[in-house]
Amino acid sequence: MEELVIESVKLDDERDTLIVLDQTVLPTSESYLDLTTVEGVWEAIYELKVRGAPAIGIAAAYGVYLAVKQEDDSDRTGFIKAFDKAKTYLASSRPPAVNLFWALDRMADRLKKSAENQASVPEMKAALKEEAQKIRDEDEEVCKSIGEHALTLLKPDMGILTHCNAGTVATAKYGTALAPLYLGHEQGYNFRVYADETRPLLQGARLTAWELQKAGIDVTLICDNMASIVMKEQKIQAVLVGCDRVAANGDTANKIGTSGVAIMAKHYGIPFYVCAPMSTIDLECATGEEIEIELRSDEEVTEKWYETRMAPKDVSVYNPAFDVTDHTLITGIVTEKGIVYPDYKTGLKEIFRP
Amino acid sequence: MEELVIESVKLDDERDTLIVLDQTVLPTSESYLDLTTVEGVWEAIYELKVRGAPAIGIAAAYGVYLAVKQEDDSDRTGFIKAFDKAKTYLASSRPPAVNLFWALDRMADRLKKSAENQASVPEMKAALKEEAQKIRDEDEEVCKSIGEHALTLLKPDMGILTHCNAGTVATAKYGTALAPLYLGHEQGYNFRVYADETRPLLQGARLTAWELQKAGIDVTLICDNMASIVMKEQKIQAVLVGCDRVAANGDTANKIGTSGVAIMAKHYGIPFYVCAPMSTIDLECATGEEIEIELRSDEEVTEKWYETRMAPKDVSVYNPAFDVTDHTLITGIVTEKGIVYPDYKTGLKEIFRP
Repeated sequence: MEELVIESVKLDDERDTLIVLDQTVLPTSESYLDLTTVEGVWEAIYELKVRGAPAIGIAAAYGVYLAVKQEDDSDRTGFIKAFDKAKTYLASSRPPAVNLFWALDRMADRLKKSAENQASVPEMKAALKEEAQKIRDEDEEVCKSIGEHALTLLKPDMGILTHCNAGTVATAKYGTALAPLYLGHEQGYNFRVYADETRPLLQGARLTAWELQKAGIDVTLICDNMASIVMKEQKIQAVLVGCDRVAANGDTANKIGTSGVAIMAKHYGIPFYVCAPMSTIDLECATGEEIEIELRSDEEVTEKWYETRMAPKDVSVYNPAFDVTDHTLITGIVTEKGIVYPDYKTGLKEIFRP
Repeated sequence: MEELVIESVKLDDERDTLIVLDQTVLPTSESYLDLTTVEGVWEAIYELKVRGAPAIGIAAAYGVYLAVKQEDDSDRTGFIKAFDKAKTYLASSRPPAVNLFWALDRMADRLKKSAENQASVPEMKAALKEEAQKIRDEDEEVCKSIGEHALTLLKPDMGILTHCNAGTVATAKYGTALAPLYLGHEQGYNFRVYADETRPLLQGARLTAWELQKAGIDVTLICDNMASIVMKEQKIQAVLVGCDRVAANGDTANKIGTSGVAIMAKHYGIPFYVCAPMSTIDLECATGEEIEIELRSDEEVTEKWYETRMAPKDVSVYNPAFDVTDHTLITGIVTEKGIVYPDYKTGLKEIFRP
């Protein structure tokens, strides 16, 4: 398992420094950033150095802790003000990532509780640090459970297609969509994984292919537009993807291109599974219609990564970062509490029942 | 119209030199190669400097002429041997391109005729040069007719999605899939064109976006995996693509990714049209099953175009250059003789009737 233990977001306790795997320089180099300020964490999230819904939540949680740990130990009101300021600031780093808000709200709740218990500022600092650590540890457990549930959907020697990266680098450990592949690999399932490169930022080529190869899992890189031919050639028996946000009806926002993969999978009769930590399921959001799609810069498409400009100067570009996969295209949604099947509106509500 | 007159393959009569637009350096620079040898033409085709089914045919026709124009004027047998050798050689430059064989066979037929008429070697050389010129001029006519027929399927202000490049740079003039856009533009149709970038070689970003922008047509570049979202957002009213080879049942081989676009178009209820010169329709080929898919090098996906390596070292890559779009996904096939609708098996046979 040692090759698997890539920890993309963790606190170095002695130095009280957040260590973040810089996902933007992979696979060329495996380098880690030392973050000691909230600005550094904001930038790491905004620039996708830390990416993947769960990893963003973990980073944000540690981020608010780093923001306030230097505050004056004698000024409780000032401390709480500083926390709120940092929370608002970090919330602006990646608005589409619901985990960001989930983690920040959880940190706020913890602070509220300890404040209500008349905790001192040092106690509140300790509480925030502990809560961030809990968020990280629980994510590892969540990923492992998702992996165990998803593995029940797979068989040895299956060909699996995945899009973007929902792997160990995107979480505390194991990942979401890739978790069953890691767990199955330990049990000798011998999967053949096809990784969409995932333009424009190539998370599939740079991250998914890298982490699976590092783990000794059979992975083949394809361009996004090759998904149809590998399905047609019966190389694919199941599609596994992660998600950024799942609406109450099952509509799922995930990396741009996911909805196209789902449409092709349905056409070829291949099951399409979304691996979704419950923290990404937003019952307040009725349908995908309500999910705002982030538009990113033209340069990501026309220049980024390129030696020479790959598109004409001043050409118009449309560069949505996500798309929404209609719930009718999704075979099942795998959560840490089990697999939800249609009707999702009922099923998703169910799993939140205590 | 002057911006449209990009001629990607033409003979400079005085210097008896083939001038080829180097499509591999677009859009950064617009540079033309002077080809005087058959080896030069072979390389230009193999390296995709000249690409697009019709342009390949034109280049190959001039290529066999260039191969034999220096032959001894007194040795008829030697001349015909030299022609056959050059024909076989050029046929190996891009096996999947049926136009290559079509053009070379047509040159061979012309030679056969003049040989039967006891033509002298100089007369045979002149005949070959004339035939190559005819192939080029007829292609321009073919593209124009395809454009006129396809334009009847479109309405002003439509959003059109295209994949790869089937434009003027790929033909003598106008292109196939882009011909109706040029002709419509002259008539003020005001199309909004979405060009898939078309990984791995980015013909959409480098060529389609370039030539449409140069012509003053509204073009927006997207990554291949954004086709689904632009269709879902109702930005697209029709899909137009070219093709490399159409089987007797309508199954169509075209640039990798085309079949996925067709599946998405069907899902969203958007008409999907293939623009096919009759030279690309192969009635000898019963179905797409018989079409061999060319596999190209891993580096096109992992390194080509990139400043830094975009995939892990030694990762497996699957890089098919084409895929086959099932005839059931195709709304209509537009030829120079008119539009063929299902049942294609009957319709395609029909248009070949004199």
